[in-house]
Amino acid sequence: MPTIEEIEQFAKRRGFFYPSSEIYGGLAGFYDYSHIGSLLKRKLENLWRRFFLKENNFFEIDPSIIMHEKVFEASGHLNSFVDPVIKCEKCKTLHRADHIVEDHLKRNFEGMSAEELVELIENHKIVCPKCKGKLGDISILNLMFLLNISQEDKAYLRPETAQGAYVNFLRQFELQRKRLPLGLAIVGKAFRKEISPRQLLIRMREFSQAELQIFFDPHNEKHDDWDEVKGYSLILNPVAKDTKEMTCESAVKNLKLPQFYVFYMAKVQKFFLDALKIPKNKFRFRELSEDEKAFYNKIHWDIELDLESLGGFKEIGGVHYRADHDLLGHEKVSKKSQEIFFDEKKIIPHVLELSFGIDRMIFALLDLFYTKEKDRTILKLTPTISPLTASVFPLVNKGGLDKEAKEIFDHLKNHLDVNYDDSGSIGRRYARADEIGIPFAITIDYDTLKDKTVTIRDRDTTEQQRVKINEIVNFICSKLGKNLFSG
Amino acid sequence: MPTIEEIEQFAKRRGFFYPSSEIYGGLAGFYDYSHIGSLLKRKLENLWRRFFLKENNFFEIDPSIIMHEKVFEASGHLNSFVDPVIKCEKCKTLHRADHIVEDHLKRNFEGMSAEELVELIENHKIVCPKCKGKLGDISILNLMFLLNISQEDKAYLRPETAQGAYVNFLRQFELQRKRLPLGLAIVGKAFRKEISPRQLLIRMREFSQAELQIFFDPHNEKHDDWDEVKGYSLILNPVAKDTKEMTCESAVKNLKLPQFYVFYMAKVQKFFLDALKIPKNKFRFRELSEDEKAFYNKIHWDIELDLESLGGFKEIGGVHYRADHDLLGHEKVSKKSQEIFFDEKKIIPHVLELSFGIDRMIFALLDLFYTKEKDRTILKLTPTISPLTASVFPLVNKGGLDKEAKEIFDHLKNHLDVNYDDSGSIGRRYARADEIGIPFAITIDYDTLKDKTVTIRDRDTTEQQRVKINEIVNFICSKLGKNLFSG
Repeated sequence: MPTIEEIEQFAKRRGFFYPSSEIYGGLAGFYDYSHIGSLLKRKLENLWRRFFLKENNFFEIDPSIIMHEKVFEASGHLNSFVDPVIKCEKCKTLHRADHIVEDHLKRNFEGMSAEELVELIENHKIVCPKCKGKLGDISILNLMFLLNISQEDKAYLRPETAQGAYVNFLRQFELQRKRLPLGLAIVGKAFRKEISPRQLLIRMREFSQAELQIFFDPHNEKHDDWDEVKGYSLILNPVAKDTKEMTCESAVKNLKLPQFYVFYMAKVQKFFLDALKIPKNKFRFRELSEDEKAFYNKIHWDIELDLESLGGFKEIGGVHYRADHDLLGHEKVSKKSQEIFFDEKKIIPHVLELSFGIDRMIFALLDLFYTKEKDRTILKLTPTISPLTASVFPLVNKGGLDKEAKEIFDHLKNHLDVNYDDSGSIGRRYARADEIGIPFAITIDYDTLKDKTVTIRDRDTTEQQRVKINEIVNFICSKLGKNLFSG
Repeated sequence: MPTIEEIEQFAKRRGFFYPSSEIYGGLAGFYDYSHIGSLLKRKLENLWRRFFLKENNFFEIDPSIIMHEKVFEASGHLNSFVDPVIKCEKCKTLHRADHIVEDHLKRNFEGMSAEELVELIENHKIVCPKCKGKLGDISILNLMFLLNISQEDKAYLRPETAQGAYVNFLRQFELQRKRLPLGLAIVGKAFRKEISPRQLLIRMREFSQAELQIFFDPHNEKHDDWDEVKGYSLILNPVAKDTKEMTCESAVKNLKLPQFYVFYMAKVQKFFLDALKIPKNKFRFRELSEDEKAFYNKIHWDIELDLESLGGFKEIGGVHYRADHDLLGHEKVSKKSQEIFFDEKKIIPHVLELSFGIDRMIFALLDLFYTKEKDRTILKLTPTISPLTASVFPLVNKGGLDKEAKEIFDHLKNHLDVNYDDSGSIGRRYARADEIGIPFAITIDYDTLKDKTVTIRDRDTTEQQRVKINEIVNFICSKLGKNLFSG
């Protein structure tokens, strides 16, 4: 299993990601995705779409990243999306006050008030971790990036995609013929002025999210497809308890969770275990305590993955029962009623949010699947999201093999993400392909010229098969269980 | 052909796009893509990728949107990406000085100096177009959005995607095994503090671009695949001349354009005419005069489409020969040599940029393809980019037809973007599908229950065919000439 430094080096060397504006010394908290990384990112996003937007009445929308100041007044971000910061009087470095206390006392102090933090810093004589200088007063810093759009308008870069769905709710409800549940997904960038970005793609200032807001009738917390999941075992880590497996049915009964909420926990867990093939022992839902929970969440379990490079379970996303917090906020500030008429009554829909950090997922995939075994290094991504699906090798660069190989490459490019590698021994080319997780390596040899077949080698089994040239695409697609999927 | 108001109403009513933060009165220059619009946008972007990234050694990368201040010092944006603005002394409205003069004198004054503009305003006694008040002094406003990232770092929202490719060039050149030409594409958001955003998706403050930077050896202005295009006819509108058709060969000879440049003009034109099916008489390349050209462009032809709603040809993108302007700029400011060793010599590669406004293309598609004929309204988008590929109708909502239709719908959803419509007469459902350009309407009737066939009606010909249920996907894909295309 790789260390965080190994992931950083590997990501840079093989073209996944590296610091943004690198020739100017980089910009803390910003990363550029290189060719292989951006393919992985796009495939992961598309897999997410296919998985979560299959349900009827679930749609993707694409609202602007910059939003009106009033949006964040209504959502509470203007007042509450803040971090306590503290400046060293000697070296002038700005620290997050809660992190300084956390690092010193080895406990979690998120959500603690400024006064309490000051008291802890004084009582424990905590000094600047950088220069041992005296720490100054705590101030409160809003984490949103402010933009002056024009003389009149103030706006912010969105700190989460979610608000785009809430301010669009009424119009979307009309457009989609007034049905509930209504799912509105947004896949895109969000921005936060983190004081101390760290751990590569884990705490970034510019990052990508895939979020799904599900609007539903609060008088009906059942889900139509409940029977499909009720016997399914969730991996749960409730507050102050050990992690255990529990069926959906028991989670409703014993943990008093709404059926509708548990249904989507099952969906989320299936996404990680079945679609991304994350090992079961690396996944859990962790319930947040009252102190940790965002103020607007009625129920809040984080999605966590066990990442060795970070020393344990890490938040990758969450299942948030935001109830009517957001729509009521927008109703109050916009003075436009968010009430709808549904099932013969007036209601403000409740919202269940499924939130995923795309960059965090990519980091986790590298942590979990970068594998060294015997003399091989393999990125064991599930083939569906492997950045490149196949690599084309001419056995040698002569005797017409190179020409034939290039023709096959050009043909495959219309159907699959492929690369071409003619440098070094076949063994070295296999090794290069394995390291970035290419599931199929196609070799063109002298037999190819005679019988129009190639060798396809499977990354995971290293087994080789002869396949007819005009059967390559079908062969690979059937191995992937791949469907035709529209542009 | 629609007016701009008709496009606005249609886009809102059928879910293409509408003003962002709408419940707060909107935010000028910002739009949200709704469900149908975001599907169209994604398909257009994917078609662009398939078309332009087919070439060997052409790749997509995904750099951060926020970039280091130094990037824009090097690119010249800090000093030169400015607009002259003028404030009315009475009503305090801020105007673009060149636009005010343009609107008054009906000529183009882009690129004119502040002094010249002041003189024109005084000589022609131009007053505030809003309140007839006296206009004040001209000031210079930078169009980039500044962000204070931290105590140390200043950064900007990128005003074009291009710089992301330039600062990544050296690393990408290494990663892609030191080959030229090297194409680096970026598809994503860019931001400009426009003084007066207007014309819906045409002049926005937040917009999407698809840009391809092609790095090549300046000692070799030939293109390997020249023979494929040399006889192809370009539609050219040179400075101070009428639009005419000219083969690529003649363009090189008569207009003294480099072969490499003309090759990509042909590619671009084919994208619009063959891939997007834009009528030939609606397309042209327009050469920019020395005054109009961006200071860094050696050769600059805009890609223009004739849009009736805007009263004529409008810039949609451009083919920009930026030469070594950007790499030299970054070399100077970063003090890191951008020189590479290629083909037995040291060079700074030259850059040819293909630049496309995604939102402008979407606006143009609605303008060009929203068609009223006899009693039908049809959005005649080419099926490849139609937001939805098929619509599923049960003839009636009883007798098992609805159940069968839903099963077919669920099956098709795994393969295609489809919707389900069971409301109103079949005629009304056809009309709804036509208006958003759905190419195939699938009706489930009583015969379906007997012989497992459905009726598929073609949007353009209105012809109907009986097709077996398990043949629907193949039937539609073969009609689309669609390939398997990876996630």
